[in-house]
Amino acid sequence: MVIVMQDHANPEDIEEAIHQVKAMGYGVNLSRGDERTVIGILGDERALDWEHLELLPGVEQVVRILKPYKLASRESRPERTIVRIGPVAIGGNEIVLIAGPCAVESREQIIETAKAVKKAGAHMLRGGAFKPRSSPYSFQGMAEEGLKLLAEAREATGLPVVTEVMAPEQLGMVIEYSDMLQIGARNMQNFPLLQAAGKSGHPVLLKRGNSATVEEWLMAAEYLLSNGNTRVVLCERGIRTFETATRNTTDINAIPVIKHHSHLPVIDDPSHAAGDWRYVTSISLAAIAGGADGLIVEVHNQPAKAMSDSAQALTPEKFIELMQRARRVAAAVERSI
Amino acid sequence: MVIVMQDHANPEDIEEAIHQVKAMGYGVNLSRGDERTVIGILGDERALDWEHLELLPGVEQVVRILKPYKLASRESRPERTIVRIGPVAIGGNEIVLIAGPCAVESREQIIETAKAVKKAGAHMLRGGAFKPRSSPYSFQGMAEEGLKLLAEAREATGLPVVTEVMAPEQLGMVIEYSDMLQIGARNMQNFPLLQAAGKSGHPVLLKRGNSATVEEWLMAAEYLLSNGNTRVVLCERGIRTFETATRNTTDINAIPVIKHHSHLPVIDDPSHAAGDWRYVTSISLAAIAGGADGLIVEVHNQPAKAMSDSAQALTPEKFIELMQRARRVAAAVERSI
Amino acid sequence: MVIVMQDHANPEDIEEAIHQVKAMGYGVNLSRGDERTVIGILGDERALDWEHLELLPGVEQVVRILKPYKLASRESRPERTIVRIGPVAIGGNEIVLIAGPCAVESREQIIETAKAVKKAGAHMLRGGAFKPRSSPYSFQGMAEEGLKLLAEAREATGLPVVTEVMAPEQLGMVIEYSDMLQIGARNMQNFPLLQAAGKSGHPVLLKRGNSATVEEWLMAAEYLLSNGNTRVVLCERGIRTFETATRNTTDINAIPVIKHHSHLPVIDDPSHAAGDWRYVTSISLAAIAGGADGLIVEVHNQPAKAMSDSAQALTPEKFIELMQRARRVAAAVERSI
Amino acid sequence: MVIVMQDHANPEDIEEAIHQVKAMGYGVNLSRGDERTVIGILGDERALDWEHLELLPGVEQVVRILKPYKLASRESRPERTIVRIGPVAIGGNEIVLIAGPCAVESREQIIETAKAVKKAGAHMLRGGAFKPRSSPYSFQGMAEEGLKLLAEAREATGLPVVTEVMAPEQLGMVIEYSDMLQIGARNMQNFPLLQAAGKSGHPVLLKRGNSATVEEWLMAAEYLLSNGNTRVVLCERGIRTFETATRNTTDINAIPVIKHHSHLPVIDDPSHAAGDWRYVTSISLAAIAGGADGLIVEVHNQPAKAMSDSAQALTPEKFIELMQRARRVAAAVERSI
Repeated sequence: MVIVMQDHANPEDIEEAIHQVKAMGYGVNLSRGDERTVIGILGDERALDWEHLELLPGVEQVVRILKPYKLASRESRPERTIVRIGPVAIGGNEIVLIAGPCAVESREQIIETAKAVKKAGAHMLRGGAFKPRSSPYSFQGMAEEGLKLLAEAREATGLPVVTEVMAPEQLGMVIEYSDMLQIGARNMQNFPLLQAAGKSGHPVLLKRGNSATVEEWLMAAEYLLSNGNTRVVLCERGIRTFETATRNTTDINAIPVIKHHSHLPVIDDPSHAAGDWRYVTSISLAAIAGGADGLIVEVHNQPAKAMSDSAQALTPEKFIELMQRARRVAAAVERSI
Repeated sequence: MVIVMQDHANPEDIEEAIHQVKAMGYGVNLSRGDERTVIGILGDERALDWEHLELLPGVEQVVRILKPYKLASRESRPERTIVRIGPVAIGGNEIVLIAGPCAVESREQIIETAKAVKKAGAHMLRGGAFKPRSSPYSFQGMAEEGLKLLAEAREATGLPVVTEVMAPEQLGMVIEYSDMLQIGARNMQNFPLLQAAGKSGHPVLLKRGNSATVEEWLMAAEYLLSNGNTRVVLCERGIRTFETATRNTTDINAIPVIKHHSHLPVIDDPSHAAGDWRYVTSISLAAIAGGADGLIVEVHNQPAKAMSDSAQALTPEKFIELMQRARRVAAAVERSI
Repeated sequence: MVIVMQDHANPEDIEEAIHQVKAMGYGVNLSRGDERTVIGILGDERALDWEHLELLPGVEQVVRILKPYKLASRESRPERTIVRIGPVAIGGNEIVLIAGPCAVESREQIIETAKAVKKAGAHMLRGGAFKPRSSPYSFQGMAEEGLKLLAEAREATGLPVVTEVMAPEQLGMVIEYSDMLQIGARNMQNFPLLQAAGKSGHPVLLKRGNSATVEEWLMAAEYLLSNGNTRVVLCERGIRTFETATRNTTDINAIPVIKHHSHLPVIDDPSHAAGDWRYVTSISLAAIAGGADGLIVEVHNQPAKAMSDSAQALTPEKFIELMQRARRVAAAVERSI
Repeated sequence: MVIVMQDHANPEDIEEAIHQVKAMGYGVNLSRGDERTVIGILGDERALDWEHLELLPGVEQVVRILKPYKLASRESRPERTIVRIGPVAIGGNEIVLIAGPCAVESREQIIETAKAVKKAGAHMLRGGAFKPRSSPYSFQGMAEEGLKLLAEAREATGLPVVTEVMAPEQLGMVIEYSDMLQIGARNMQNFPLLQAAGKSGHPVLLKRGNSATVEEWLMAAEYLLSNGNTRVVLCERGIRTFETATRNTTDINAIPVIKHHSHLPVIDDPSHAAGDWRYVTSISLAAIAGGADGLIVEVHNQPAKAMSDSAQALTPEKFIELMQRARRVAAAVERSI
């Protein structure tokens, strides 16, 4: 961290700033420039509550130098993390395909869809039992009944199941029926939920908030990691921008950025990013070529009858085609599916 | 709602779309333009799960006509809502000032600050006992001990207290000690929390999510209203944009927009929007002139010692000055403080 | 500027970075922290093309310390700039009202509107003769004929005229007929135009680009100032965000931010920010209370017949009401209109 | 277009709205819903200046149904456009690689870089002679001297040249020395420049403005097309969002969106989107897999000595590697390089 003093700050103000930093137990290093004096703070700034330093007289700004996350950084762990969910490994050479409907709607729907995606080559099943919906008048999910149907679908296909948990009090129940927890975009900074999921040790798929920076996203992962859970997979799902041609904007840059700064695996959700099935395959292929470790794709046995997000779900036929094309692109970047 | 068919859609596709709409129990009205046929859907579209209509062959897009919120709209309630919290009324002619520290840190800090803001003329006290922090390594609040200190401060000053609740399981405890619940920006779409707060009937200050549209914000209010709680006050607190000169961007436009579309009171939080005490007074005056029903301002008896958000807190002296200037602007727009 | 070395960078890399900086003629100051070494660069970084320093081995990032603008900063000029356009002074105690139609459409329209806004108390007349339109099929302005009508309207009312210039080759003609040049939001980074307008010495109203940061906006002003033109007035007119309830989002925070960092006057355009006349008055009052030095408001003698932006234009009656309310708010913040 | 009347609008207002529309020469179709009456407007709404309809009493909003662009739409031209620049064809099966430095800096630099990218397999050379720079104190390009060096580099390698034009008065000179004009992001809505470039008939690479929607971008193309120039290639180069981990956010979704709505070719610029050479290859591969027709990549023979944007330039060695990997991904999506 460095403290930048105002133009021609007076010597007493510089002294006072140095005094304050030393009183907090940190060393300092002084640079006197022509216009500005800069005070370097020596030590781990992550433990430092620094904002009030900006209030000192003569201080222009305080500039953070270190990344605020530690356990999520590649520096703390140079080798890549591989998260295992039963027979599935996310973060290794193989690209993992998670597929299934937005919401569990009925036994027939989830079993049929699970069989279809299994047949197409998917590795895991997705499906929501607790659904965050922006309208109180929309279908809110089947809750425990939905979880039971997911467990049935797993039994019928052998596919591990990932499903969303929306509140700490749902955690026990969701863990009981699922192989991986999904923390949704709207809950990326639901800290009580992150703490509880961290303590559970159950694998977590952590979706990026639709207006979260990469740094905030890694800080949310840090909540999980610092509570003892190392089985964390990140999921890019589109961010909110001014563009309205698609539901969100896939931040494809975030894939190599995450790979550069973190050891955690990262997958992509093209369905929520696009909000339109017609764009899902192109975005999927882009994500794989760009370095994603997997995809989570909405597939519905009868999209036209889906109770939520129907416009973005692929039919099983379209999903088979996506798998075939994805395999070729994966091979081109020396990975397999 | 209207269904826009593709350019020169064939008659069978038009027939099928009409058939589907009628099968859902709605009437239709057909407009055949030169290039496009448009199918109007007659009836309350809010109850309609319409997305799958976009999947029908020959359909270009489905355009929603009605606002998705009902109870929060001015049409459902033309007169303005006034929310009473003990002796305080938010939404009437008087502009309400809520002031206090970001977080409760100690008895001395909260009592002193409460007395100072009371003396300056504030109507309510704010202070967080449960603090959402982006880093797991930051101070997370004093929890129940903080709530008790808030209750003490209320006793010492007579100021009703508003404080944040972060999870449904904290609700009982927070209601016990407080006069109004704050649902923070990060929890604006925490639907289990909204439902529980809605059922509680306790007054709610609903902050806008930092990337929530006005419509989503009113839909979050709709969760509270449709669960039976009509004591809802909205709080604009800055949205996330590309601009980094301030922490967030105050959406001042949202004040008259809310007044136009809803009957609910709306106040402004200049402290989180600016992230810098130097801009707080200007933004406060702007919000009052723009039509806000109140302000929630961070004040700390010793900002340089604050444990969170110190850079945006006003000293008691600065707050007194803000109050004096705010009174003049309020009078200029024919309101009082 | 400081160079932050990577975690445990090796000594040779640190040496090389220091060597490079010295070779560019700058002094250095070394801070060795526990994890990171930070190299402070002593001297005026604005003249330094620094990006390539990030390419040196072992360098993590280069952090700029100084603001990139110089002439636009308050440090270079502590007193406030007042820009005089004939009898009008922008940036002094008086708040300046500029009003008129989006586009000049006919003699009758511009003369009538000019007389109406003059009568209501406006200080200057606006009106576009060259119109930037996103569609090639929309009305593009009356060009020189429009400029002549503006000059007639000035003669008829005594109001100085501000009008948009879109390209360097229009500059001579626009200066001939107008008292102040408007550089529109889309041209805020049209550098050939900025250079030409800078050299002209004619007063300039510099609108903020709809996605320009405050810093970029001040850098655009720096183009004018460094080409010798000190008669620059900034104009906030809404930025592009995810919110669609209004055409743009008024960045009210930017008003005090500009006042803090620059000596230039800043006014507000509520009409383009809102895109809806119903919100114009509230935003206008907010801007004045927030510290703006003036307003530029769209007024049309018959909005329902306007050829562009009709939805955001006030009628003369509404403008009279705006003026009355604006006077009261101006007085409340100790300014006059 | 449809006019949505307010809740329970009175019959006179509905009549008046219908009257106004008919007076403009359009047919109408009336839908009376339970809450709202909707008036459909029959005819080509693109020619309609509709905004003032929102001002009529009883009107809630006017909803546009048709896309505002015509010549750029796939409906106007179902087959894909292929733009030929000498021996190069953009928009066909082959993916086109354009490479070279940000700015032309010297004969040695541009000739060496041109030879290097030619050897690596690039199809065209890029390099700026007129440079838009946010600071007036930065290097602004070599102007005509730079153009001459580009022409020399073309002679030496056979690579067609694309270079930026910033103002209509530069157009003649830039056309003389180049094979394709680049209209940069900041000039995407410089309408005088678009009109002049449209009339020139010279091939145009139209970069997306950093805050332009896809629709506005296609409207900018419409300016070129409607002025008679059909040789238009679109270039996605990252949009401005809240994320600061990269310079801009590549809108990868825009690639399939453009392919869906338009017949024009679209390429990707990973260098400006990332602002960091380390992410350029990943984004390049993603763009190809996502359907882009080409790439424009910054390559510099000695990035550490570049006078602008050095941090995002690849070395020739890195570019050779990018080409090799790009060829494999292109083959995987059944295209060639």
